[in-house]
Amino acid sequence: MSTSRHLRSWVTSANDHPDFPLQNLPFGVFSVPGLGKRGGVAIGDFIFDLQVALEAGLFSGAAQVAAEGASRSQFNEFFALDASARQALRSRLLQLLDEHSPQREQLQALGNLLQPMSDSQMHLPAQVGDYTDFYVGIHHAMNVGKLFRPDNPLLPNYKYVPIAYHGRASTLCVSGAPVKRPQGQTLAPGAEAPVFGPSKRLDYELEVGVWMGQGNEAGEPIPIAQASQHIAGFCLLNDWSARDLQAWEYQPLGPFLSKSFATSISPWVVTAEALAPFRRAQPARPDGDPKPLDYLFDEQDQQHGALDIELEVLLLTAHMKQQGLAPQRLALSNTLNMYWTVAQMVTHHSVNGCKLQPGDLFGTGTLSGPQAGQFGSLLEMTEGGKQVVELSSGETRTFLQAGDEVILKARCRKDGEVSIGFGECRGVVVG
Amino acid sequence: MSTSRHLRSWVTSANDHPDFPLQNLPFGVFSVPGLGKRGGVAIGDFIFDLQVALEAGLFSGAAQVAAEGASRSQFNEFFALDASARQALRSRLLQLLDEHSPQREQLQALGNLLQPMSDSQMHLPAQVGDYTDFYVGIHHAMNVGKLFRPDNPLLPNYKYVPIAYHGRASTLCVSGAPVKRPQGQTLAPGAEAPVFGPSKRLDYELEVGVWMGQGNEAGEPIPIAQASQHIAGFCLLNDWSARDLQAWEYQPLGPFLSKSFATSISPWVVTAEALAPFRRAQPARPDGDPKPLDYLFDEQDQQHGALDIELEVLLLTAHMKQQGLAPQRLALSNTLNMYWTVAQMVTHHSVNGCKLQPGDLFGTGTLSGPQAGQFGSLLEMTEGGKQVVELSSGETRTFLQAGDEVILKARCRKDGEVSIGFGECRGVVVG
Repeated sequence: MSTSRHLRSWVTSANDHPDFPLQNLPFGVFSVPGLGKRGGVAIGDFIFDLQVALEAGLFSGAAQVAAEGASRSQFNEFFALDASARQALRSRLLQLLDEHSPQREQLQALGNLLQPMSDSQMHLPAQVGDYTDFYVGIHHAMNVGKLFRPDNPLLPNYKYVPIAYHGRASTLCVSGAPVKRPQGQTLAPGAEAPVFGPSKRLDYELEVGVWMGQGNEAGEPIPIAQASQHIAGFCLLNDWSARDLQAWEYQPLGPFLSKSFATSISPWVVTAEALAPFRRAQPARPDGDPKPLDYLFDEQDQQHGALDIELEVLLLTAHMKQQGLAPQRLALSNTLNMYWTVAQMVTHHSVNGCKLQPGDLFGTGTLSGPQAGQFGSLLEMTEGGKQVVELSSGETRTFLQAGDEVILKARCRKDGEVSIGFGECRGVVVG
Repeated sequence: MSTSRHLRSWVTSANDHPDFPLQNLPFGVFSVPGLGKRGGVAIGDFIFDLQVALEAGLFSGAAQVAAEGASRSQFNEFFALDASARQALRSRLLQLLDEHSPQREQLQALGNLLQPMSDSQMHLPAQVGDYTDFYVGIHHAMNVGKLFRPDNPLLPNYKYVPIAYHGRASTLCVSGAPVKRPQGQTLAPGAEAPVFGPSKRLDYELEVGVWMGQGNEAGEPIPIAQASQHIAGFCLLNDWSARDLQAWEYQPLGPFLSKSFATSISPWVVTAEALAPFRRAQPARPDGDPKPLDYLFDEQDQQHGALDIELEVLLLTAHMKQQGLAPQRLALSNTLNMYWTVAQMVTHHSVNGCKLQPGDLFGTGTLSGPQAGQFGSLLEMTEGGKQVVELSSGETRTFLQAGDEVILKARCRKDGEVSIGFGECRGVVVG
């Protein structure tokens, strides 16, 4: 896709758009008043309606098959297609939306082809069969481990196993959905018995979501060399966490109610193709770290399997909203903080024969950097609630309060490439 | 349903049937050659085809609505109905199948109303949105805890929190599906680094499955007094477990690949109504155990919320099959070994606002008794692989070998009541 770097679109708001220039073309499920849920493509400040485009006969062959899948109210069938069909659709969309497109006048004459994003409501892109949350952010694992085991923050399996656990699919929600503070059991420090009530340590977690494309048959693992072909796209993911519920419930089987009340994702599926220019060599493992076991090792994946995506967390409190203040950045991090590649996650998940399906969603786990200003959760910023975060509004936080809005953003930048973004993943805490 | 206890059916194989007398009437999804998947009711050695019965106009009102839901190839819509609709269908089926039914001749004239079970293939009863595995078998928790922490087998949260974790929905399979031995990472005792290969410690777990009926809205917990109305039915569940994978991977986020390769369930949904006569008072908590927190406590649930279901594990090795030997019983246990009721499981799961949906499945966790002969896993029988199980065939086992078939059974017995059974949950280990 390196030929796309200088292209500009006749949809002028796309040119120099922070998130959705012609080079991005992410897919999303949207609705506008009077029209049911349907699939579209973000271009500048608009959504390119694939149903309208299909009716106008703009696609043929593999691109048409892909456009039909991506025009529906859920992308599961679209994600199930071979990556080549998705690529054919992308090539055709790049042609159609180019400023020099021969179809430009035909398209501009289609009155309802481009829906203003500001009039549209976004929805979950797929029915998620299973949601899996990984733990591949090594600095987060270190930061959290230090709170519990100062001398030995990383457990012995961490550098061999892409650690993960099954999450709750039913409470995945799309950016903008309010997040109700959960109730549950907590054990006060020094107390003998727990009490029941609202969580007092509500937190966010900065993660990237990974949409599974083609799956596998039960019992047939996906080899590491093929794993990247099974990824349809990416989004932002906020793994809301009630730290006080988590501390009391998580032994011996892991987090449960402390996470399952809500998980927010951004609505746009940024494709593997759009991210191709922002692939990198996997950062070198520190001296002394073991080489991945053979089933997780592929030279191509080591050379090109890492992602360079800048990640940001912002906070907008109710008070800041009232005062007309802008959201405040709490952290800036990057997907290069992943200890394992996405391909390694896919292969590990399926190596026992587990069946992965189109529309399954992975979270990466919290992607913190090693330093202050790069921490992807309040748990880390406050050292387990012991330090206070001072906000420029004059407020302070240890954990989230009612009315706080958490905003995740992501952007890819590279010299010589047009930057692309993920849009936003927002959620306001209620109660 | 106490009036049903002396009823007999004109389907003569139902009378004195070990599993499916007239008093049971479990629902299942089946197919026969030439006919697609559809819902039916087990009666003796036959399946009562609800599509044929509906076409014959045998239902009206709420019973018809329920019969339509239960006639489909997935029960999600059926499970979503109010419990009263399911009860109306049960009442009508009891009338129709009674030996004195006025419709007896009409029904007997419908040639394909009763499909021989032996000609039918059974399928998963519903599309499982989320699968949650609990840990409410206190003797299992004690037995396993002793292996890791001899002085302190139960963690401090156990008697307050109905411990659970999210499981993998995509690899749920129905009785009879072969179970392929998983591969994965294991750490040999004393080794510094793990190796990759087939699990050498493959095990079963004896559990009961719980089918969710009506769900809740996100953010709206189900109160304990209403929780039993949200249960549609029950099945047997084998939570196949690779102990060597589990030991290495499970810290800090719980079991993952050690469980997600396969979970087998029995195909028949034994309804809450059929189990009503086998409800019991929750066994008294031992002296010194805390009272459940208020949100988990309901006097009616304490008096009638426990289940008295006899549970059995049998093993049939390839050698035993070749020799024509019968399966050997490995354990006999009971659902009275549950420390928490099913209503407490439902309420706890939803108390943080987590959305439960019709067709969600819970496992109870392994239901072992306190004594030898009552252990629901080989891990417990062999004390973590240290003891050998001697089989009457002359073979021995510590963990499962290729060709081993594990068979779970369940039966309810009570003086003055006709016994009912769950059918079987079977699976053969491949590789």
